[in-house]
Amino acid sequence: MPHRKELKQEAAVRAAALVESGMRVGLGTGSTAKYAILELGRRLREGELTDIVGVPTSDASDTLARAQGIEIVELGTLELDLAIDGADEIDPNLDLIKGLGGALTREKLVELRAKRLVIIADDAKLVTRLGEKAALPIEVVRFGFESTLARLADLGARGTLREQGGQAYVTDNGNYIFDARFGDALPDAATLAERLKLTPGVVEHGLFLGMATQAFVASSEGVREIPARSRTS
Amino acid sequence: MPHRKELKQEAAVRAAALVESGMRVGLGTGSTAKYAILELGRRLREGELTDIVGVPTSDASDTLARAQGIEIVELGTLELDLAIDGADEIDPNLDLIKGLGGALTREKLVELRAKRLVIIADDAKLVTRLGEKAALPIEVVRFGFESTLARLADLGARGTLREQGGQAYVTDNGNYIFDARFGDALPDAATLAERLKLTPGVVEHGLFLGMATQAFVASSEGVREIPARSRTS
Repeated sequence: MPHRKELKQEAAVRAAALVESGMRVGLGTGSTAKYAILELGRRLREGELTDIVGVPTSDASDTLARAQGIEIVELGTLELDLAIDGADEIDPNLDLIKGLGGALTREKLVELRAKRLVIIADDAKLVTRLGEKAALPIEVVRFGFESTLARLADLGARGTLREQGGQAYVTDNGNYIFDARFGDALPDAATLAERLKLTPGVVEHGLFLGMATQAFVASSEGVREIPARSRTS
Repeated sequence: MPHRKELKQEAAVRAAALVESGMRVGLGTGSTAKYAILELGRRLREGELTDIVGVPTSDASDTLARAQGIEIVELGTLELDLAIDGADEIDPNLDLIKGLGGALTREKLVELRAKRLVIIADDAKLVTRLGEKAALPIEVVRFGFESTLARLADLGARGTLREQGGQAYVTDNGNYIFDARFGDALPDAATLAERLKLTPGVVEHGLFLGMATQAFVASSEGVREIPARSRTS
């Protein structure tokens, strides 16, 4: 039986195979998205692909992609053909929780500009309802963050400010992340997404609703494709 | 006839007179709010006031207040007794446009925690409808800001990215400011406020609705008080 790592890699290879020469590609962040960037690098080096440009969703993916010989451009007002990224949770509608890697704001800003968002993950990320397993990351302005967390608590959020090495974790945008739980699972995700974004001090949250168009999900039986659907946001 | 500067100063003195010993005070930002901080310093030095603490809304006000001997604390989850600040526009309901000074996000986060928000301004700031004179400042994440501005254009916003010394202006939170105009005046401000905050890439905007409880407005006839009303947000 193949290891989890190899399965995630296979899902990433399937997603990277969707990239064609000349495309503009959003490059995700995290341990699974990394494999997609490596595979794009391989395809470029072996001449299978030419003339693609990548828009990375984090400083880490930027560095990795450049090292792989992928031409990097700024998002600007580009429309992207495709974005490939991981997810922390995937529900039956392909609605997602993202942000464990800390790059949720940049991921959302890039992936909103992509005609297709292809998700790669292992089957441990599949849930019936969002919030069953994963915390929901919420990016908040550092200034006055305690007052912002108090407002989030009023919305039912319980959780912790993310730390790294004993210090508060700071995103590429200079903000904090609050990893929030709302009971056993999220209440209505669309309503919650709106309430969170409307909260003063909140920059962005990890609910990606109506964005993913397709997913490759690795399990012990191999990689399963959850077929394309059209975007609703 | 007194100069504009002296009138603004007089309005600031009237607002500062509302501060009593022991109060927690939100300290605004900008040329008018500065006078209130100076007056609080004077009252402390002359023994009219003791034991107040201030929560500044910008690095500049922090520095000024400390130099005036005002004890500074972090916002944390404090509830403030009073906040004093300027405004760029004031409508007949005491709804405001703020943010010309660049501190709108910190101002909003601090002033939301204040039981009373007292506005000081000269009568050039009075308008019938918000957006008649002033641009509406919108704080946006730097990453992908062009795509955020494209979404704002879809909401009817026309304007310019704020610059300072030939460079894009960067807020204390590390973001950009887009100074937006929406035709001759703002459409329904409450609806617009919600749409702006819901826009991915937008951190905060300069609409302060239902927040101000009282104003002191300076004109060539002297300082007029717009009486207290209760907060609705």
